[in-house]
Amino acid sequence: MKASVYQGNKTFSVIEKEIEAPQKGEVRIKVAYCGVCGTDVHIYHGMMDKRVKIPQIIGHEMSGVIDAIGEGVTNIKVGEKVVVRPLDNRGEKPSDKGFSHICKDLKFIGIDSPGAMQQYWNVPAFTIHKLQDKTDLKLAALIEPLSVACHDVRMSGLQKGETAVVLGGGPIGLLVAMVAKQLGGKVIISEVNEIRIKKAVELGFDVVNPAKTDLVEYVDKATAGALADVVFEVAGVQPALDVMTEVAGIRGRIVMVAIHGQPKPVNLQRFFWKELKLIGARVYEAQDYELAIDLVSNGKLPVQEVITKVEPLDNIQKLFEEIDTNPEGMKYLINCQ
Amino acid sequence: MKASVYQGNKTFSVIEKEIEAPQKGEVRIKVAYCGVCGTDVHIYHGMMDKRVKIPQIIGHEMSGVIDAIGEGVTNIKVGEKVVVRPLDNRGEKPSDKGFSHICKDLKFIGIDSPGAMQQYWNVPAFTIHKLQDKTDLKLAALIEPLSVACHDVRMSGLQKGETAVVLGGGPIGLLVAMVAKQLGGKVIISEVNEIRIKKAVELGFDVVNPAKTDLVEYVDKATAGALADVVFEVAGVQPALDVMTEVAGIRGRIVMVAIHGQPKPVNLQRFFWKELKLIGARVYEAQDYELAIDLVSNGKLPVQEVITKVEPLDNIQKLFEEIDTNPEGMKYLINCQ
Repeated sequence: MKASVYQGNKTFSVIEKEIEAPQKGEVRIKVAYCGVCGTDVHIYHGMMDKRVKIPQIIGHEMSGVIDAIGEGVTNIKVGEKVVVRPLDNRGEKPSDKGFSHICKDLKFIGIDSPGAMQQYWNVPAFTIHKLQDKTDLKLAALIEPLSVACHDVRMSGLQKGETAVVLGGGPIGLLVAMVAKQLGGKVIISEVNEIRIKKAVELGFDVVNPAKTDLVEYVDKATAGALADVVFEVAGVQPALDVMTEVAGIRGRIVMVAIHGQPKPVNLQRFFWKELKLIGARVYEAQDYELAIDLVSNGKLPVQEVITKVEPLDNIQKLFEEIDTNPEGMKYLINCQ
Repeated sequence: MKASVYQGNKTFSVIEKEIEAPQKGEVRIKVAYCGVCGTDVHIYHGMMDKRVKIPQIIGHEMSGVIDAIGEGVTNIKVGEKVVVRPLDNRGEKPSDKGFSHICKDLKFIGIDSPGAMQQYWNVPAFTIHKLQDKTDLKLAALIEPLSVACHDVRMSGLQKGETAVVLGGGPIGLLVAMVAKQLGGKVIISEVNEIRIKKAVELGFDVVNPAKTDLVEYVDKATAGALADVVFEVAGVQPALDVMTEVAGIRGRIVMVAIHGQPKPVNLQRFFWKELKLIGARVYEAQDYELAIDLVSNGKLPVQEVITKVEPLDNIQKLFEEIDTNPEGMKYLINCQ
């Protein structure tokens, strides 16, 4: 079988290795597709060399088919279409208060242990979510990032008819916007990149370029002065942090989706004044995966629109180099067979 | 009747004026006591001269007895003990989504219109909360700041048995700590001022001086690694903002009670990583007043411990000067009769 291996120093190699039998409690998956996550790009850039044990197979946004079953695994059959929820919470403690998905000793499969950018992948059976027979395996590689979006929207408590402003129209921003719209939200996307704006407009979204139009005035008019009920900060830049507290209305909920590596200035007076909430959201829980599987399997969202390109595993090095030089790209998939 | 008047330039005068009849929908209160709020001190410092129309009678942390009833006022009788919830929401609009207490055009009585630091005070009847016959009017002057604390704790969603860390042991911090303890929280106060530490210890609180003891380590040990369920940021300083995201455990709720005039650095990565919530809390709603009235009237909290001094109205200038030079002082009251 083939496997791609991150070797450090912006380098992947593709190697031949033995197919391994699944251990007790594991399943072996014949990987169909694996998407490239922002985290994978961080790894490629060497930003996570302290955490990733080089050489390492990475990747976690995948779809596939059960190929073999380890001892003690029931309720899953060879041939079933599946995705993996790559969270290993076996180190969970009472002090984690039951929040398994973000427990202190969480291991992320594909970062802390081998990932899916290979032909066959052995994972603990408890990470598996079954797909439907009809689920398209290419689109199913988007279930993991879509589950992030489902989690973000669920954490926001968005109600039907509420106005949601999504700051940033990249792949996660677009998926958040799609889920928020699907659940009955009135969605406004804020994005400065013209190619991303075009894509969001084509998808039927109300899009504002805050470099050209005053976002707060726009939302104020659109909501008769009520401003946003929910704001998703997916841009990860200071102007988004500056505007999030302005564009949110009274008791607005701001979901922090972006990862800000350093402490950043936040207007806390606005939190006090409007009784805003800032809500941190990380990865997903089982119910987010189930919603994402339903949305993808039943064609409820145009998720195919975020796919920029699909390349074979052999081309992984070229693919990461292309991602690095194409800031307008959205989601790149690897065909692992 | 006597009234104190803020004249700008750190100056109060005490004047004689006519007692006025209450207008339609108003009541006249014979003011018993009026506490000095941090906001009143800000006004004294000239920080709010743009908002306060000089000359202005200020003050809103009061207690008193109904002295006269205006046309159309029912359900209130002369002689009843009362406090005022000094929020005038008559400018409320649908875009305020029903959050009357923080509506965009809220007028704060005692800042935007005449306040309670006078012998008789006319206010809209809808601002009145009745006290019990037995309620001590001196302690009742603490109901307004105690209602802030009740609101903060309610907004935190504190559950019985949860650990609450209060950053800052000044008057509001102590009241927040008292309410959190009363509602079943395990309270830890963080305070650097030795006199405030002594007071909090005397009141039976678990107190940490973060200049001497690592607060996060202390709370980690006290909670077997779970850290704080709820954090109240009442200190208003950068070290409190730095520690609040560290001392909060997984899905911890941080209530922003302090007012930070400028944007300040916040570690947003911790919000993401631990799925923290930041909750803005401002003033109070009717139910917070009712809880505070019960707590004070029935002696459930040692609120008298936050009273530093009571001075007659004639001494208001001296009192504000003393507050300015005594950073260890807690709550100062004016006897308005």
